[in-house]
Amino acid sequence: MKCRRCKVPAEVALPSHNTAFCRDCFLVYFSRQVENAVRRHAMFTRKDRVLVALSGGKDSLSLMLQLSDLGFDVTGLHVDLGIPKSSESARAKVEGFCADRGLKLQVKELAAEGLAIPLVKAAVHRPVCSICGKIKRHFFNKVALEGGFTALATGHNLDDEVARLFANTLRWDQGYLGDQGPCLPDESGFARKVKPLYRLSEFETAAFAFLRGIEHHKDACPYSPGASFTGHKRLWNDLEWKSPGSKVSFYEGFLERGRPAFAAQERESGFTLTPCAKCGSPTSQELCGVCRVRLAVEAFGKG
Amino acid sequence: MKCRRCKVPAEVALPSHNTAFCRDCFLVYFSRQVENAVRRHAMFTRKDRVLVALSGGKDSLSLMLQLSDLGFDVTGLHVDLGIPKSSESARAKVEGFCADRGLKLQVKELAAEGLAIPLVKAAVHRPVCSICGKIKRHFFNKVALEGGFTALATGHNLDDEVARLFANTLRWDQGYLGDQGPCLPDESGFARKVKPLYRLSEFETAAFAFLRGIEHHKDACPYSPGASFTGHKRLWNDLEWKSPGSKVSFYEGFLERGRPAFAAQERESGFTLTPCAKCGSPTSQELCGVCRVRLAVEAFGKG
Repeated sequence: MKCRRCKVPAEVALPSHNTAFCRDCFLVYFSRQVENAVRRHAMFTRKDRVLVALSGGKDSLSLMLQLSDLGFDVTGLHVDLGIPKSSESARAKVEGFCADRGLKLQVKELAAEGLAIPLVKAAVHRPVCSICGKIKRHFFNKVALEGGFTALATGHNLDDEVARLFANTLRWDQGYLGDQGPCLPDESGFARKVKPLYRLSEFETAAFAFLRGIEHHKDACPYSPGASFTGHKRLWNDLEWKSPGSKVSFYEGFLERGRPAFAAQERESGFTLTPCAKCGSPTSQELCGVCRVRLAVEAFGKG
Repeated sequence: MKCRRCKVPAEVALPSHNTAFCRDCFLVYFSRQVENAVRRHAMFTRKDRVLVALSGGKDSLSLMLQLSDLGFDVTGLHVDLGIPKSSESARAKVEGFCADRGLKLQVKELAAEGLAIPLVKAAVHRPVCSICGKIKRHFFNKVALEGGFTALATGHNLDDEVARLFANTLRWDQGYLGDQGPCLPDESGFARKVKPLYRLSEFETAAFAFLRGIEHHKDACPYSPGASFTGHKRLWNDLEWKSPGSKVSFYEGFLERGRPAFAAQERESGFTLTPCAKCGSPTSQELCGVCRVRLAVEAFGKG
């Protein structure tokens, strides 16, 4: 198979696009997919300061590098979860990556906030994964707003987005279906949230990370039984294999024809958020989820 | 495993309901599922005259028998497609079934209408399956309206409905998603359409047909490369296997939370149907689909 653009032997086959590329042309393709996503959804411009959430995995580091290469003003944010060994290793990868490339980085330590995940796990009698996600999103948003960043970017790829959309469609979760997409506006106390990799598959971000020599954190979280939506991702890889382009078509079709129906309903429902009585973060209750976790951790500390 | 109701050894296992039944109790369960579906969706009452579309397959014959047992006033309608051997065999099964049980039956012959499927197939340069479906629905509706029937019942089961809903969700087909369910009201020239088996799986209707000794037409249509949605049905059987109850939950969730969002949008769009200039059937064009097929067949006949 030959590279579609320059006809030398191809290195990366992309059946979804019925094509293949050599190393250099794949990187051009990848870059254009990101640039088009940013422009089409008006995510941000070169005048914006963009905060990029960096877990240390291949997706977030690839995103950071690509946005920096495209000339955007990016700053990384790593939330150190305080999990022995695992968090140290992830943080070291992020710090090394940014230092080597002269990229700006901020680190938020959950231990300094009294919210190290092992402590939270001990204090709260619910699965820790959803709470950990909630805490991370809380600090992503807080740092973005306090630092005057105009957009908060995460490394979610097409497979992540399709699997999550699929899970929410199976449940016909109206709230989610009316308010989901690659660019969520800044409103009611939330920074603008953007996902510039949403058109690129997990395979494509992995190929990018590999070709660009990104050293990333590969180990699964010791508290998580497995990656999210593994079953749904497998199902979608089967659908994609039988019918290339299915993932993009499902996701873009949702943005064009599914989301508007649910968004109209959501607007009619008049659902509103108010500031948390303690920290000011937007919440549907008196205290936000993170402040409620804090109370649980404090109560646990007092025995 | 024992029967949930009467504790004798079970004959039919139903993992979706985390239960199993003996022969007699399965038939009670089946009957109640049908009766509940009819009542919950106000499909029809014992005062209505119900036309039941009978292909000769296990689903439609099971539906006819169950509705008759429940004391509903049912009349079968078989559309003879005029396909050599296949249609003769299907029609014989339907006629035998109704004659043996003293059930009312009407037969509509497409050949007498100049629309035998082999002729249509020769005349029209498109896949014949969708046209055949269109022609059958046209005559189901025509016979129901002209005969003064208050509801038209089809044997679609849960697997049919879920696979079709899934296909339309993958495409985010707004028109379909706003106007789909087990009971579609009589409006704009359409008889009320009902699917009393929509909560019962293919396995369950097959078990019913087997236990009740229904002899049905089993051969695939000679013009169809395979049953509809085979891939989607397999995918959903996998999902159901991993997470029993998934099919019912997806379909009922759609009825409760998905359909209303699309239906609201549909109402806003103000889409209307008008009577066909030739036959009076509702259509979005000047001539309905079946009259256009008639024109193509006539042109083909003239050479």
